[in-house]
Amino acid sequence: MRHLRFPGRACSVASALEIVGEAWTLMIVREAFFGTRRFSDFESALGIAKNVLSDRLGKLVDAGVLEHRSVVGRGNPGDYGLTAKGHDLFPLIIALMQWGDRWIHQGKAPIRVLDRATGEEIAQTHVVNREGRELSARDATVVAGPGADEETRRRFP
Amino acid sequence: MRHLRFPGRACSVASALEIVGEAWTLMIVREAFFGTRRFSDFESALGIAKNVLSDRLGKLVDAGVLEHRSVVGRGNPGDYGLTAKGHDLFPLIIALMQWGDRWIHQGKAPIRVLDRATGEEIAQTHVVNREGRELSARDATVVAGPGADEETRRRFP
Repeated sequence: MRHLRFPGRACSVASALEIVGEAWTLMIVREAFFGTRRFSDFESALGIAKNVLSDRLGKLVDAGVLEHRSVVGRGNPGDYGLTAKGHDLFPLIIALMQWGDRWIHQGKAPIRVLDRATGEEIAQTHVVNREGRELSARDATVVAGPGADEETRRRFP
Repeated sequence: MRHLRFPGRACSVASALEIVGEAWTLMIVREAFFGTRRFSDFESALGIAKNVLSDRLGKLVDAGVLEHRSVVGRGNPGDYGLTAKGHDLFPLIIALMQWGDRWIHQGKAPIRVLDRATGEEIAQTHVVNREGRELSARDATVVAGPGADEETRRRFP
């Protein structure tokens, strides 16, 4: 199905965007990282319409990013929690936040993320090589990978 | 304007998503990182409708992520290139790609990104503290920053 939306342009950016490439979806994931668990708390924290929230939560559960857990003493509502797949979106959320801090809020971050152990602000997220050296896009090149389709192999031999 | 879309929930994730929180938008940014410059090349690489492409390119130029450069010998078409603000989306694009490689393509990446200097694959993008130690979301905590509004200060004192 995802290959219908981004036809024949296989790359994990495209596939990942099929799941998280919608603004509310990533806002919900952000909220989950902030510790929000209940439908009503997502609703009030985000100011999102019930039907939109319900739809996006359902999609995130279907995609395996969130899981719906029943809570003793509460019936249907239950909690929504990040799965391992969801937790692994942390670098993406932080990269997005840091870009916004820098380029939209001119360094005046609305929210600071701290290392619990040291109380210090986390570092900037960078792309690094295996030796830990920071790379810009100009330092990088792209080749077809093991999961490449015919078109990708032609394009990035 | 952006505070209308995500009302009163100030955070750079929200602000960044106002600019790049749409699947085609990040696909266009990905293409720009792949070296695509011309309207017709974006069109054929992405299989995107002309009117949608034109709209998204215009928004990216307005947001300062891309710039439209006239090219000698070509009239109106010109090229679209990443600005510094656009180049700075590299960690975000790579974080998105690596998440998709891992969780959607089960490690069989359609595309591999290499360090030009060493020819080796880049490392996984992680959130790190100032000493370079890898942090998961559980190792991190959130406090209001210098750009926090009243609501954010109440929520994350």
